[in-house]
Amino acid sequence: MRLGLDIGGTKTDAVALDDDGAIVDRVRLPTGFGADAVIRTALDGIERIAAATGVDARRFASIGVGIPGQVDAARGTVSHAVNLGFDELDVGGRLSALLGREVKVENDVKAAALGAYRLLTARPVAASSVESSAWSSARSLAYLNLGTGLAAGHVIEGALWRGARGAAGEIGHIPFDPAGALCPCGQRGCLETVASGSAIARQWATDDPYPVRSLLAAADAGQAEATRIRDRFVDGVAAAVRMLVLTLDVEIVMIGGGLSNLGPWLLDEVRRVLASWAVESPFLASLGLDERVLLVPAGFPAAAVGAALVGAPSAPEMERIPHG
Amino acid sequence: MRLGLDIGGTKTDAVALDDDGAIVDRVRLPTGFGADAVIRTALDGIERIAAATGVDARRFASIGVGIPGQVDAARGTVSHAVNLGFDELDVGGRLSALLGREVKVENDVKAAALGAYRLLTARPVAASSVESSAWSSARSLAYLNLGTGLAAGHVIEGALWRGARGAAGEIGHIPFDPAGALCPCGQRGCLETVASGSAIARQWATDDPYPVRSLLAAADAGQAEATRIRDRFVDGVAAAVRMLVLTLDVEIVMIGGGLSNLGPWLLDEVRRVLASWAVESPFLASLGLDERVLLVPAGFPAAAVGAALVGAPSAPEMERIPHG
Repeated sequence: MRLGLDIGGTKTDAVALDDDGAIVDRVRLPTGFGADAVIRTALDGIERIAAATGVDARRFASIGVGIPGQVDAARGTVSHAVNLGFDELDVGGRLSALLGREVKVENDVKAAALGAYRLLTARPVAASSVESSAWSSARSLAYLNLGTGLAAGHVIEGALWRGARGAAGEIGHIPFDPAGALCPCGQRGCLETVASGSAIARQWATDDPYPVRSLLAAADAGQAEATRIRDRFVDGVAAAVRMLVLTLDVEIVMIGGGLSNLGPWLLDEVRRVLASWAVESPFLASLGLDERVLLVPAGFPAAAVGAALVGAPSAPEMERIPHG
Repeated sequence: MRLGLDIGGTKTDAVALDDDGAIVDRVRLPTGFGADAVIRTALDGIERIAAATGVDARRFASIGVGIPGQVDAARGTVSHAVNLGFDELDVGGRLSALLGREVKVENDVKAAALGAYRLLTARPVAASSVESSAWSSARSLAYLNLGTGLAAGHVIEGALWRGARGAAGEIGHIPFDPAGALCPCGQRGCLETVASGSAIARQWATDDPYPVRSLLAAADAGQAEATRIRDRFVDGVAAAVRMLVLTLDVEIVMIGGGLSNLGPWLLDEVRRVLASWAVESPFLASLGLDERVLLVPAGFPAAAVGAALVGAPSAPEMERIPHG
């Protein structure tokens, strides 16, 4: 059995996976703020899963942590985790010392890519939908995270590709409009300035705690500025998909993150934009971009599942049992 | 010993590699036009290398062909090779039948990526420069081909990544300016519309058979439009490098293709632009883009060398002997 944690800015997800990679237990708890509180949250999650499954923490085949920020997966350290209240933390080392066993650490978007890939390639019995089981032999996937920011994680030849410096997938900071808005990163017109939660919050002033909800309601009501921001958001997501496919030619781009809660509406809109581009461009049409986009199913804890697999030697292999 | 061919629109390169991957023989011949003539050119190249090395064609450890167009590497077929005068050709099957042995086929840009990677990771004794020997442990590389068009090939974890449909690296058709020129592909503002040979030929009318030479001379002489086209070209190449690193985080982007003959001038200009972007963006600065760009050394037949290695099982492994 494997154990995975997804430590988010407000909530932490913990899951136990059986030997087939299916979720057998899951708990959700609030994330503490600051280095010590984050470690306590992680320990709490691990202990609750251990209690629920009756497996001692030392006896899990792997324990992995997905966490936002810049992660040195080899050393288990995390830096620049602003939302969690620390600048530098040896998450792997501290949890390993406390538990007396190895704990792996991975950036949460990269962990989610591995979790999304597991879902995609799971044997039909474990697959959550007919749609995903059609992709069970996929060798590549990009996970596109639409949260406060925009970033991606890649699975290539069945394995997570972190890049030379762990920066693979930082596509939120690829400019796609030289006349676009100034990005906090210092560049202009980055994808993240139109296709992210922060982009919507910046452009759409509202008292609603969910600016996207307010934006979409206003657009539905015909408000011109809201419509413009909404359409540019969808165009930006479609541009991210196009960029991922033209660069990497992944079989699937699976959209997750907070904004993926927009659900079928978002998927339909992105596919519609991609299909409209294909009408103008036989080259794009030949690549079938709109057929490659999927949404992470609502409620599937991709990052926690992926974190459990980060600790696994040749993790995705365990799914590659002949389907008979 | 291995044998590689690079079948170009006008010239075909053929090389023999020894067991260390070093070039031991090389011939260059004009490429015939049309399906039969292309096959004859390939046979001619193979026979000449066989004669020069004294090795029978059937006794090479591998024979590979790099060729422009859409290649089905598994079947050995090539389609849409407009410059070679055919639409569909079973290059692998016809050469295999004529020679009585397996002949592998790969898209020329992807083959060149493998050749560039071999050069980068070759043991110091075989490396062509001190600069490249510093990268001998690199696990990833993007080869950026600046020819008539713009495209890339990727080596990830030491292996060529073709993508799900062989389209990995088609970054020339990623738009980077919604207000840019209409691209023959049907989209607007694609990288290829500013950073390729065809982009310069389209924008700079001249009788010079080398429009780039004419453009650069006019820009050097202070001609405003030439300067604008030249600067946009360099910006586009730098944008391609940024896109490859932010998406894939490859250790090196190696620039090759016809326009790489611009040599140190091009390398210096691209590095200068990347460094100037880093001044504006601490995020980009942290990624050290300008340090990751190299040029394929003048005269190095990257695609022919890579084609020889395409036929090799776990090709790049042969370079990974401890440097002791």
